[in-house]
Amino acid sequence: MADRYANFANSGLGRTVVKRLGLPDPPRLRRYRPGDTIAAGPVLLGAAPGGRLAEPVAKLLENAGVGVVETGSADTRYAALIFDATGITDSAGLRALFDFFHPYARSLSVSGRVIVLGTAPEATAGPKEATAQRSLEGLTRSIGKEFGRGVTSQLVYIAPGGEQSAESTLRFLLSGRSAYVSGQVIRIGAGDAPAPADWEKPLAGKLALVTGAARGIGASIAAILARDGAEVIALDVPGAGDALADVANRAKGRALQLDLTADDAPARLAGYLAAGAHGGIDIVVHNAGITRDKTVAKMDESRWDSVIGVNLTAPERVNDILLEQGLIRSGGRIVGVASIAGIAGNRGQTNYATSKAGVIGLVQSTAPLLAGRQITINAVAPGFIETAMTAKMPLGLREAGRRLNSMSQGGLPVDVAETIAWFASPGSATITGNVVRVCGQSLLGA
Amino acid sequence: MADRYANFANSGLGRTVVKRLGLPDPPRLRRYRPGDTIAAGPVLLGAAPGGRLAEPVAKLLENAGVGVVETGSADTRYAALIFDATGITDSAGLRALFDFFHPYARSLSVSGRVIVLGTAPEATAGPKEATAQRSLEGLTRSIGKEFGRGVTSQLVYIAPGGEQSAESTLRFLLSGRSAYVSGQVIRIGAGDAPAPADWEKPLAGKLALVTGAARGIGASIAAILARDGAEVIALDVPGAGDALADVANRAKGRALQLDLTADDAPARLAGYLAAGAHGGIDIVVHNAGITRDKTVAKMDESRWDSVIGVNLTAPERVNDILLEQGLIRSGGRIVGVASIAGIAGNRGQTNYATSKAGVIGLVQSTAPLLAGRQITINAVAPGFIETAMTAKMPLGLREAGRRLNSMSQGGLPVDVAETIAWFASPGSATITGNVVRVCGQSLLGA
Repeated sequence: MADRYANFANSGLGRTVVKRLGLPDPPRLRRYRPGDTIAAGPVLLGAAPGGRLAEPVAKLLENAGVGVVETGSADTRYAALIFDATGITDSAGLRALFDFFHPYARSLSVSGRVIVLGTAPEATAGPKEATAQRSLEGLTRSIGKEFGRGVTSQLVYIAPGGEQSAESTLRFLLSGRSAYVSGQVIRIGAGDAPAPADWEKPLAGKLALVTGAARGIGASIAAILARDGAEVIALDVPGAGDALADVANRAKGRALQLDLTADDAPARLAGYLAAGAHGGIDIVVHNAGITRDKTVAKMDESRWDSVIGVNLTAPERVNDILLEQGLIRSGGRIVGVASIAGIAGNRGQTNYATSKAGVIGLVQSTAPLLAGRQITINAVAPGFIETAMTAKMPLGLREAGRRLNSMSQGGLPVDVAETIAWFASPGSATITGNVVRVCGQSLLGA
Repeated sequence: MADRYANFANSGLGRTVVKRLGLPDPPRLRRYRPGDTIAAGPVLLGAAPGGRLAEPVAKLLENAGVGVVETGSADTRYAALIFDATGITDSAGLRALFDFFHPYARSLSVSGRVIVLGTAPEATAGPKEATAQRSLEGLTRSIGKEFGRGVTSQLVYIAPGGEQSAESTLRFLLSGRSAYVSGQVIRIGAGDAPAPADWEKPLAGKLALVTGAARGIGASIAAILARDGAEVIALDVPGAGDALADVANRAKGRALQLDLTADDAPARLAGYLAAGAHGGIDIVVHNAGITRDKTVAKMDESRWDSVIGVNLTAPERVNDILLEQGLIRSGGRIVGVASIAGIAGNRGQTNYATSKAGVIGLVQSTAPLLAGRQITINAVAPGFIETAMTAKMPLGLREAGRRLNSMSQGGLPVDVAETIAWFASPGSATITGNVVRVCGQSLLGA
């Protein structure tokens, strides 16, 4: 499970060897610890003329204690470069991006942040502006691949009227919580989002269900949601016994043993939640997932059925009954776990990739239907994450997975968990239907 | 420019070495030659119960002279496996995919075809069906990576009421014209498309403009559009002189020397077209493009401005004036040339990737506005194509580009040209707003 190469590359001797031989150079990523400041230094904020976001974003960041400067200096190391591109209404105007980023391309600290703010093409006034705003994606993805040293780069489309709802996202992206999220496009919708009373405990008073919680990514999700203040129900199959109890204990939560693929399981879960003092649930994380890899020629029916059943049908059935019975409370959050394989496809994983592409479909098709009930549904799509599962991969595949991304290393379960916690925040009320990869900007894609 | 490794791998000695050492094994792809049959063997057509496409597709293929069978045999080599998945309305129903593909996963010939037909998620009756239909993408992309031997795999969403318009697409995908197109999702809209009088000359009577036509991909586009019956205006900058004249002569068309980035150039082009006997233009291919690679830190203003200007602003200005003056005739076709870099981003290409992401934005934002005028707009996004440009790449990058795709080889200019010719066909009247990669299913993506 340990990435020995990354440890070596960050040792005294290793740094010399890596530089001499031009080997991949995985930086130590800045990850969040409770009490950390949001940004580890000053943030340079620029804007194309006529933009609508720089002013509200500057205020929001200053209120959050972030040091914002609007005039850059070549001698300063910035924690982030943020550019409001909403004023760009045609392709000639894209020049403002070059003017802003060129002088400061080498001024970011390790694990620095690039954030470009735009208007989603579908929300623009016409094709000229839509084209220019769509262009931003080419810039942010290229910068993510170019800047290196743990710098992440994102494009955040903020709907007109959604300016006040950007705080949870900016806090997430600026902080070490998003260490392994890069090259993503995030859409924030119009409307207000309630600010948590305490941004260190945004989930206080919320009840969260995490499936597949006994191990790996699921265990980390339970821990992070608990850290952020949620009361956690850690669910896994009966066979997970002790490991599940440990996770629940560490999260000061409850363990629930249930095989969600059983016919009556969703109804039993609904009964359990309905009977609880909370009268329902606030956060549902569909993390449980399995792989049963074989090529199509060698696959048998049971591998197909079990993977589709656990990864896709079970979350659908759980959502259905909880929503029908009104057990997901207003302000609720549903988070699915997709995968890069569901986006790009993968050899030997037709069953898994089909199920994970389905999770994306589930999120995108359900989001509009839940908007009226103040419930959001989003998905994370992990890339190569260091778990017991990936530790068992053949060396060549494992090393490829680790290095073929902008961070030159695998992610950690906590990186997936932090992204889910961001979706779960009350501050993310206007974020729905998003699929955000947690993949260090893996080269793989569609 | 020659892929010496592929030539070696396909030699007698090479085949032995490649197999012994487990090296990449680039097959000789079946490419189209005039007079070829559509499919090089029988096509197995299956369907999930309740599907709406198997019957019209079977008729359409039989009329086109394709041998369709609906009951498979393990002893037959099929040219294609086509599956109508429109009957799948929930995730449990996805099992029909396994049942169809599992027994025949090894029954495809070299350069065989997998085509899954579905209903676009946004056109389904609800989230259950939308989820299942979105899942298909995980299957087709995985099969593309798994089957090898030049087999391509696509997902084609056909809108209800668009059944009769699928012929141009099925002919394209089954034939050698789509040799290097794999892992794509294509959307065919509702409505009828006129069948060309002669499918070997579908562009007869059409006038086509190709920019950047003097060399490489542009020269191939001019040749292929001419082969398909179009009268071609080959446009390039004045400096391209002799090369441009050669291309125009070979296409039995006209050469037009014009620098489209000049202020008055779009107006001069419009004047030229208005004065012609044709009274306008039917097909506009915005192929002209340049690269001026540098990292953001090392880039200068002129590299930024020239790349955005040629690749994005010029096509926008040309479209604007031709559309304003009504010079793109009803039944018209506009085709842009994007790039994998515009989808995935690329180190050292922020300017290029920004411009090519913009081409995607241009296509997607303009398509709905042109529908009422019976004009379509689409884009191709080439991956690694063997041209004089890629021949100059450093060896390591070039070999990576060639091998990191499902075909284990680079594409040819003709592969891009054939894809553009498919968009340009009268039979593709209901295909608009699509971006189709010509990349051999490159691993790179977003």
